[in-house]
Amino acid sequence: MITSRSNPTIKAIRLLRQRSERARTGLMLADGTQLVGEAIQNGMEVVQIIVAPDRVRSPFAQEMVRTAVTRGAQYLEVSDDVYESLTDSEGRQGLSAVIRQRWTPLHQVRPVQGHTWVAMNAVQYPGNLGTMLRTLDSVGGAGLILLGHCTDPYDPAAARASLGAVFSLQMVSTDQESFAAWKRQWGVHLVAADLGATLSYREAAYPEPAVLLMGAERDGLTPEQKELCDTMVYIPMVGRRDSLNVAVAASLILYEIFHRSQVPAGQ
Amino acid sequence: MITSRSNPTIKAIRLLRQRSERARTGLMLADGTQLVGEAIQNGMEVVQIIVAPDRVRSPFAQEMVRTAVTRGAQYLEVSDDVYESLTDSEGRQGLSAVIRQRWTPLHQVRPVQGHTWVAMNAVQYPGNLGTMLRTLDSVGGAGLILLGHCTDPYDPAAARASLGAVFSLQMVSTDQESFAAWKRQWGVHLVAADLGATLSYREAAYPEPAVLLMGAERDGLTPEQKELCDTMVYIPMVGRRDSLNVAVAASLILYEIFHRSQVPAGQ
Repeated sequence: MITSRSNPTIKAIRLLRQRSERARTGLMLADGTQLVGEAIQNGMEVVQIIVAPDRVRSPFAQEMVRTAVTRGAQYLEVSDDVYESLTDSEGRQGLSAVIRQRWTPLHQVRPVQGHTWVAMNAVQYPGNLGTMLRTLDSVGGAGLILLGHCTDPYDPAAARASLGAVFSLQMVSTDQESFAAWKRQWGVHLVAADLGATLSYREAAYPEPAVLLMGAERDGLTPEQKELCDTMVYIPMVGRRDSLNVAVAASLILYEIFHRSQVPAGQ
Repeated sequence: MITSRSNPTIKAIRLLRQRSERARTGLMLADGTQLVGEAIQNGMEVVQIIVAPDRVRSPFAQEMVRTAVTRGAQYLEVSDDVYESLTDSEGRQGLSAVIRQRWTPLHQVRPVQGHTWVAMNAVQYPGNLGTMLRTLDSVGGAGLILLGHCTDPYDPAAARASLGAVFSLQMVSTDQESFAAWKRQWGVHLVAADLGATLSYREAAYPEPAVLLMGAERDGLTPEQKELCDTMVYIPMVGRRDSLNVAVAASLILYEIFHRSQVPAGQ
């Protein structure tokens, strides 16, 4: 059992809280039974499974540990103190895992009817990104396309807020130019939320396959992105504030697209 | 200028991060130009205005300070170090304020067509509560009714996520029994989201005045609350997870109610 916070393996794992280290290694740290379970059940590669044995009691958690080890994960037993040094989440369920990030190359992505993508060009709070992924999963979405330097979906707060949707959805990272070429190649219908749009999200048509592009909360979309969009929609607001939380705004439009795909046109 | 973190006034203000201290004093701490500005523009009573002078440069921030002092706020000039000891938010704009909480007694609340209320019976993350308030403001909502021990809307994270909607909406705290009596007295239409409901939120009717009741994410509504509801709706989900973020779920239904009030029935 590892009992020292300064154990080199533990120090390396703790570094995964930093984005730069996640980018360098291609790894991420998932904490909690639910999140680790989602990673394993979605076939993510578990590099290390970290167990504070006194806390891991549920049969499900124990089964997840066995599954991870069977698939080749390194088993690390740690003291409560070492475990707590790895996580800032509240659950403290005694189970964490180092997971290999999974990225789908854009050229392998073929859009499919009924499976919406979200594209994002901006840095948002990781919790908001995770919440958006949770909604995207709920509407049967395909995945997330990150354009340039965006929030990291493998940030612990994003993964946690996604309830593990980050592991079941596809994650793509690309640049604007490749995205534009892909969009044209597949005839994707690109929808964006924009404060300056004149069409309400409830009135717009959403031919599929659809991609919802979410811009930066303050700065919105670049001119090149607006040029690329097929539909720009706004969300009506009558209050004092001029914008919604980005995860809420994305969720409203995602559910609108979802609803349209469920009912015949005209209803 | 106050330069010591252990100054008694500063220590008292710092204690307002704790819910028990906010409950005891009826005060809260707002940080940042935008949030302090919203409090002042919504006529909240500012007890103390706290300024780190080197950081407060915008004409708007300076005007807010003048307004607060004119209305009787105590002016506290503090060092950067002392200011930083008061806030954990990222903006660090050098402007905070101690605000007197404003609670509307339920018996003064008369529901009005087109101004939806949200009622809540559970503890949620303060950020989720704030995000929900931000949406409620966007649909012209009236306010929030807290039933029993719920998340504190004057929690700094809730106030921040609300973008100040906590100051423009009405806040009510009551018990289940009084709420039930008020609901019956005014013929309010009570809508609740429930995983076990058989009616989609898109298919339901929402006679006004409406109150949306949001239960605990895990435990849902109590039998008494279900009994009180006029309409129970679910939000369709086709993914791996069986629930949405509570702020997202509330926002979807609030926008559905809002949309119905904007267009003639049948469309």
